[in-house]
Amino acid sequence: MEQAERKKAEALVFYGVSGDLAYKKIFPALFDLAKIDQHPKLVIGMARRGWQLSDLVERARKSIKEHGHYDEATFEKFAQTLRYVDGDYRKQETFELLYAALEGTEHVAHYLAIPPSMFQAVVEQLANCRLAKGARLIVEKPFGRDQQSAHELNATIHKVFPESSIFRIDHYLGKSAVQNLLAFRFSNTFFEPIWNRHYIDSVQITLGEAFGVEGRGRFYEEVGAIRDVIQNHVLQIVGYLAMEPPVGTYPEALRDEQVKVFRMIRPIAPTDIVRGQLSGYRNEEGVAEDSEVETFAALKLYLDSWRWDGVPFLIRAGKKMPKTAAEIYVKFKRPPLSGKVGGLTNSIRLRLSPEVQISLGTNMIDAVDADQIVQRPLEATSLEGYGRVNPYARLLGDALIGDQTLFTREDAVEVAWSVVDQVIKHPVPVIQYQAGTWGPEEAASLAADVGGWHDPT
Amino acid sequence: MEQAERKKAEALVFYGVSGDLAYKKIFPALFDLAKIDQHPKLVIGMARRGWQLSDLVERARKSIKEHGHYDEATFEKFAQTLRYVDGDYRKQETFELLYAALEGTEHVAHYLAIPPSMFQAVVEQLANCRLAKGARLIVEKPFGRDQQSAHELNATIHKVFPESSIFRIDHYLGKSAVQNLLAFRFSNTFFEPIWNRHYIDSVQITLGEAFGVEGRGRFYEEVGAIRDVIQNHVLQIVGYLAMEPPVGTYPEALRDEQVKVFRMIRPIAPTDIVRGQLSGYRNEEGVAEDSEVETFAALKLYLDSWRWDGVPFLIRAGKKMPKTAAEIYVKFKRPPLSGKVGGLTNSIRLRLSPEVQISLGTNMIDAVDADQIVQRPLEATSLEGYGRVNPYARLLGDALIGDQTLFTREDAVEVAWSVVDQVIKHPVPVIQYQAGTWGPEEAASLAADVGGWHDPT
Repeated sequence: MEQAERKKAEALVFYGVSGDLAYKKIFPALFDLAKIDQHPKLVIGMARRGWQLSDLVERARKSIKEHGHYDEATFEKFAQTLRYVDGDYRKQETFELLYAALEGTEHVAHYLAIPPSMFQAVVEQLANCRLAKGARLIVEKPFGRDQQSAHELNATIHKVFPESSIFRIDHYLGKSAVQNLLAFRFSNTFFEPIWNRHYIDSVQITLGEAFGVEGRGRFYEEVGAIRDVIQNHVLQIVGYLAMEPPVGTYPEALRDEQVKVFRMIRPIAPTDIVRGQLSGYRNEEGVAEDSEVETFAALKLYLDSWRWDGVPFLIRAGKKMPKTAAEIYVKFKRPPLSGKVGGLTNSIRLRLSPEVQISLGTNMIDAVDADQIVQRPLEATSLEGYGRVNPYARLLGDALIGDQTLFTREDAVEVAWSVVDQVIKHPVPVIQYQAGTWGPEEAASLAADVGGWHDPT
Repeated sequence: MEQAERKKAEALVFYGVSGDLAYKKIFPALFDLAKIDQHPKLVIGMARRGWQLSDLVERARKSIKEHGHYDEATFEKFAQTLRYVDGDYRKQETFELLYAALEGTEHVAHYLAIPPSMFQAVVEQLANCRLAKGARLIVEKPFGRDQQSAHELNATIHKVFPESSIFRIDHYLGKSAVQNLLAFRFSNTFFEPIWNRHYIDSVQITLGEAFGVEGRGRFYEEVGAIRDVIQNHVLQIVGYLAMEPPVGTYPEALRDEQVKVFRMIRPIAPTDIVRGQLSGYRNEEGVAEDSEVETFAALKLYLDSWRWDGVPFLIRAGKKMPKTAAEIYVKFKRPPLSGKVGGLTNSIRLRLSPEVQISLGTNMIDAVDADQIVQRPLEATSLEGYGRVNPYARLLGDALIGDQTLFTREDAVEVAWSVVDQVIKHPVPVIQYQAGTWGPEEAASLAADVGGWHDPT
């Protein structure tokens, strides 16, 4: 997609450089960009650790060796671009140091990989120290914890940065398999004609995690499954699957359609919501012994649109599921006369992770008994390459060149919160479920009239 | 499909039992039927070779060992069903012997694997000797050499057998991969909506043979590529690809639609016909030194129908092509904005032989550069089973139980001849081509406006 402003940022100021995200994802991502010469001239790491530059360099080296595609020659080059500024984000002197470090640099992107509670302080200091003008702001999730807080966060940032300079990250959109949903739908002649209520019976999205909260009980108590993955990842996927074709290729075409999907989501009936809590969750460190936080949620959504009227979108996500997998399952209406000639319902299965797979459940005759119709997949093979792309490399690369397509727009983030607010604000009771199951049995009944959930295998 | 009359024939009378077809295909096919207990109680081999039953049994054993799935136990059982009647088909005494051999058998199928010039004699003797009543007649190709001769052949047979008892074999329809064309189109929800002029740009069918006439020059001089494979195999495929969905599952539903396709074929312009002759063909034994017989033909057909108006069906077949392969290539119209976002034209490739493959040319993002749209196939794997089914086992099995679905109906065979008669009766000149090419260069120009031929690889 084209983008109006395409000036490449010369410097990336990276707040939270000593954190976990930086170590696991961001250094490796920046290093991937360095490998293809898409790396900014200057990367200024910000933290309050009392580090020297050498500490940052060694931290980066260790991170890339452990999580990235390390090679000596690129690292030499990469290390040359690193700078370190130490200090408290609430203090002006920190930003004066930053100002000095940026001396002579024209286009700057500020990347906030820090808790949202710090956003206001940083943004004000940036304005205060004349570091905001013409700069970009890249913001890590979570972006708020409900519609109200997201709205306030937007207001805070907008005092200093216009929307056209703000890049809200949902790293899920940086995944090749997720971007491919759009390519799959809109660059093939044969999907668009059948991608509607006339041919599609139902859509399912499962985001399963085989692991639990793993010592992050205190964090999880504030979040829960709905805030953690449904408000962002799952709804973004719903958007990509359900959106109208972007009317053209102008810069906002895609995001214009994405937000429309969220607006079309019909108010969710309490009977279409199942919240589950993993048996044993309350014994985790940092978890209240009467916690009502959900570690699993399943929702049945309907989109009040011309295209999707009557087609349920069943979504679910949870901890300690039988499998770690993100999968979309699109079920078609039954072929005519299938009762007479046999054959199963057609489907498209899109596995987003951990492997990337695309499989079209197609009816054919049986090889041995040609009177028998059986289902065999048409499959894409060797899509492993998709899984090797670090989504942050994609997203930071886009932010550096000013392409907002894969970032969540102000209106989209607020509307997405308004959807899940219905569930968060007046939650149905949580139901206990056992580890290694696909959530409480009540979730199954949500999918009963579409033939049940299609569990990732 | 249901069929009105489903009485299983108890006996198969097999005319031409000493021939090549019997040896290579029919014994192995009958043996395959024996393996699954679909074999008739009695198989009477007819020939004028002065054989004894033991000669027939040994010939069958050798044939099955060489071309079939021989096993001792089944052969014991199979051999028990064999009888042999020797004699001249023009003589009544031959049929008196046959009458005696059939004594007490109620339902009989007569299978004419003999030259069409003999059909009249056999049919008259069957009537004469009270062997025709209630019997079925299975007829091998070629069924005539033009519309007139086919019509005469029909008239001859109809004097004795009603259409409901006649089974005209085109062994191509017995192939699992060919039958699967129907399953593929009609038992999947997602193909029918896009299977028309709105989404399909063009259709190609290639039937290439890497071999030449191989000593059969004298035979080939009487036939040529158009009669040999286009009038039957290729047009049947056009029918399966282009037909309307059978309106239901009544016995004639499929054949009703098949013949309609042939009727819709627009008169072929001479500029849409290319006839080629293999360089060196005239030096073959039995070939005239000024022979004008084609060993290659390419035609561009249009169907004057609501569904296919304006969609060219390009068909070609020839000897000494670069590859022995039968392949269908359906090209879709280009996706919208493909000039801007990239991606190739979508296609469905259906390889019928020698391997069976189905491949949907689908656009996806490139694994490395997600801004790049590339084409990757969605493919069915392990369809080898299709190729292992002997089409004659399928067809003879169907004829024995009285299912006419996969046999060519009187009207279809005559209309198909009327299509190729246009080409045969006023042929365009043959153009020489070199072995190992896809025919004369003039054939390429037929496909120029659809992006050229898609050569099987």
